Amino acid sequence: MEFSAQQIAALLGGTVEGNPEAMVNNLAKIEEGVPGTITFLANPKYTPYIYTTHASIVVVRTDFVATHPVESTLIRVDDPYTSFTKLLEMYDSMKARKRGISSRAAIDPTATVGPDAYIGDFAFIGEQVKIGKNVQIYPQVYIGDRVTIGDDCILFPGVKIYRDCVIGNECTLHGGVVIGADGFGFAPQTDQDFRKVPQVGNVVLEDRVEVGSNTTIDRATMGSTIIRRGVKLDNLIQVAHNVEIGENTVIAAQTGISGSTKIGKNCMFGGQVGIVGHIRIGDHVMIGAQSGVEGQVKDHTMIAGSPAIDASKARRNFIHWRNFDDIVKRINKIELLLRNKNQNQDHE
Amino acid sequence: MEFSAQQIAALLGGTVEGNPEAMVNNLAKIEEGVPGTITFLANPKYTPYIYTTHASIVVVRTDFVATHPVESTLIRVDDPYTSFTKLLEMYDSMKARKRGISSRAAIDPTATVGPDAYIGDFAFIGEQVKIGKNVQIYPQVYIGDRVTIGDDCILFPGVKIYRDCVIGNECTLHGGVVIGADGFGFAPQTDQDFRKVPQVGNVVLEDRVEVGSNTTIDRATMGSTIIRRGVKLDNLIQVAHNVEIGENTVIAAQTGISGSTKIGKNCMFGGQVGIVGHIRIGDHVMIGAQSGVEGQVKDHTMIAGSPAIDASKARRNFIHWRNFDDIVKRINKIELLLRNKNQNQDHE
Amino acid sequence: MEFSAQQIAALLGGTVEGNPEAMVNNLAKIEEGVPGTITFLANPKYTPYIYTTHASIVVVRTDFVATHPVESTLIRVDDPYTSFTKLLEMYDSMKARKRGISSRAAIDPTATVGPDAYIGDFAFIGEQVKIGKNVQIYPQVYIGDRVTIGDDCILFPGVKIYRDCVIGNECTLHGGVVIGADGFGFAPQTDQDFRKVPQVGNVVLEDRVEVGSNTTIDRATMGSTIIRRGVKLDNLIQVAHNVEIGENTVIAAQTGISGSTKIGKNCMFGGQVGIVGHIRIGDHVMIGAQSGVEGQVKDHTMIAGSPAIDASKARRNFIHWRNFDDIVKRINKIELLLRNKNQNQDHE
Repeated sequence: MEFSAQQIAALLGGTVEGNPEAMVNNLAKIEEGVPGTITFLANPKYTPYIYTTHASIVVVRTDFVATHPVESTLIRVDDPYTSFTKLLEMYDSMKARKRGISSRAAIDPTATVGPDAYIGDFAFIGEQVKIGKNVQIYPQVYIGDRVTIGDDCILFPGVKIYRDCVIGNECTLHGGVVIGADGFGFAPQTDQDFRKVPQVGNVVLEDRVEVGSNTTIDRATMGSTIIRRGVKLDNLIQVAHNVEIGENTVIAAQTGISGSTKIGKNCMFGGQVGIVGHIRIGDHVMIGAQSGVEGQVKDHTMIAGSPAIDASKARRNFIHWRNFDDIVKRINKIELLLRNKNQNQDHE
Repeated sequence: MEFSAQQIAALLGGTVEGNPEAMVNNLAKIEEGVPGTITFLANPKYTPYIYTTHASIVVVRTDFVATHPVESTLIRVDDPYTSFTKLLEMYDSMKARKRGISSRAAIDPTATVGPDAYIGDFAFIGEQVKIGKNVQIYPQVYIGDRVTIGDDCILFPGVKIYRDCVIGNECTLHGGVVIGADGFGFAPQTDQDFRKVPQVGNVVLEDRVEVGSNTTIDRATMGSTIIRRGVKLDNLIQVAHNVEIGENTVIAAQTGISGSTKIGKNCMFGGQVGIVGHIRIGDHVMIGAQSGVEGQVKDHTMIAGSPAIDASKARRNFIHWRNFDDIVKRINKIELLLRNKNQNQDHE
Repeated sequence: MEFSAQQIAALLGGTVEGNPEAMVNNLAKIEEGVPGTITFLANPKYTPYIYTTHASIVVVRTDFVATHPVESTLIRVDDPYTSFTKLLEMYDSMKARKRGISSRAAIDPTATVGPDAYIGDFAFIGEQVKIGKNVQIYPQVYIGDRVTIGDDCILFPGVKIYRDCVIGNECTLHGGVVIGADGFGFAPQTDQDFRKVPQVGNVVLEDRVEVGSNTTIDRATMGSTIIRRGVKLDNLIQVAHNVEIGENTVIAAQTGISGSTKIGKNCMFGGQVGIVGHIRIGDHVMIGAQSGVEGQVKDHTMIAGSPAIDASKARRNFIHWRNFDDIVKRINKIELLLRNKNQNQDHE
């Protein structure tokens, strides 16, 4: 997949300055450009790099004026950032797409698969599974009985979806994701042993959900664990049974959400956040990394810390934490001063 | 799998009030009941929902008296909670069971498999593996050489058990669990490089252990990493080499236990707890979520915080953390007061 | 694999004292020795155990003098620790090695595999993959198109390597590791929805890297996420896109590193550390478990806490945290004292 400056300029509606036969097969940041790559200059802050980059092609603004010699071939366009994003998406779409249904996959005869599917080797597709159109199921994926998968989904290698779960359209699940394992429910018995509470619900992912590698989303005890439209989950996240995550909420890696907690829409959570069970978190909530959330959170609030409090207050407290030793020394000093005064008064 | 109110009433020894032909195929919480589901009313707190639920059937106490019209068919029993739990377990057992040994599995001829097994497609079973009776091994499970698995175990898709590990009876391992990977042991060399310390021990799970999705339990350097009878581990937990976890201890998601630490029985740990290596944690210990445990913990103690301290003390400290800024302001005020006094005294 | 005391003594150049036909098939710590195991005594602290161990053979120093009866057969050598390490490595190497390419693996005809490979059942190897010599690829491993793997690597069951990634020589990847999944990049759109930023870079592991079970390393947006020579990563670690980790850095379980952060060489990080994105951490940096790192860190520093500060300062602050309630009580007392004084002065 090599392209010449001329081909790319034609594609972008731009003009070539330099060698129209300059060939590229990859994209790069301008500061990391090497021969064979194409990069772009949009933010003036990065202008110095255009004189040092070894990228074969740089996409620049129509009115860019070089003040030093430039090694790279230039393609001039109206909006370099948008043009480059277009290339990025094209490049990505060209590489990723696989087609065809492997004879080495195990597909139950009662399953239905829409047109234009890719089903890779050693994938398992259970009874009465329904798969939409244009779906990519990579090797070694497991899809349990009666699972429904919408259109245009990508399931990367080793994704596991337990029985009866529902995946919407345009969802992307990365390697090792486990959807629909039993929620963590055990009833204590009198002999200190525990009895498993059957988990007979399922997991529902609405449309446009992306789930990062090795993230786990447990099935509901009854009803559904629900991940709403547009939610983006990073890697190694734990979503417990009966949790609900609202539309377009974005959660960073290694965060854990305990059972039955309901999270609003348009939230952003940092990494390694822990959230207790059975609470309600509002819409447009922002939570700082490593926070520990132990109670209700209102709409449009920012919180941080463990336990989590208002973020601006937490920021001040973090400074106090840094100065904790000095704070204690100040108290020591006050006590000493008061003790001395007392002694002085006693002496008076 | 549809059942009528009449069939269920017969099963539970209850009496139908309403339509005996009302059909259900799923269970629900009373506040989430939809047509086709059965629910129950045990806790009086939930009584209002019986007038609004759309569940087709509600299991109620024999003496329940409706004060408003009820849309659902009722089944009257002595103890609705116990009756419903019975339905939950029946429903669960009906769905989960698979049978037969797939011709697409790779089973070494020296392995032995007990009666009534399910071994799914693309499962791998190594040399001299011994598998008990009534075991369910889902697709894409890996069982290394000389592993022993007891009776009535369920290994969900993508479980990986490295060689020489031992799994007891009635164990459930969820998708993506890794049992027996090498412990994290490296000996520093003079050139700053590290030399791997061979990890020749194994992992032993006793009976009735449940392990959540993508949890990892490393093999011992020598000897065994031991998970005692009845232990329940949630998802994404890390158990390092030579750890031992005592009977019926329950650990929530994303907790990590460092090497050679010994944990007692009947403990309960919250999520995202971190525990250092080479310590002893007693029996009946409770640890709050996100705690950091760095030393011995006695029997019957509750701890919280990072570093973890006595839980009641930690709870007070969490309040101080929330008020930290006010606390510092109080110190500022005291200092100001004392400074002014001093100045006044100087002026006197 | 059983060996007699005589065979082992010959191997180690030692002398047998006791039964030369004593047979062992496993290694043990001296305090855990059972019949059929061999152990060693190097550290005098452990001498009492030689009189109580049930190990069949103990490797001891040439000049060891028993003061009580010893049940075990002894093998006398110059340096018991080194001799035992030799046995450990031999034992390990004997067990681990598999050979041959399974007919149940799916290997693209355009892939090349070096000599002495093991490729297990249900492994998938994509187009134009290049695999070096003496590589062990366990069952159910996924290797995407154009991946390159060096010599002497071990990929345990269920490892997933996405397309275009590069693995060096002598790398070990444990079960469930995901290398090269998409970085977590989404551009907010005006309608609150997010648009995926294509992740067209890759992951590069240099030589002698070990990666623990279920750890995830995301591919770069552009360019490479780079793990340098000799890095050791424990289980369940998250490495985000465009991160770089320097030579021989060792990171404990469940740590998370956010996007574009660059980490120096010879660092050691504890477990459950969280590191923000776009920062630079120097060489020889040590970070305590559960730390939260939010800014640059200089070479040769030790930090701890969340937010992380100088470790010796953090240790003092951890003590203050433990005493927080007492500290607040001291402030209460001071305020009371001052209030009383004021009142006294008012009364004077």
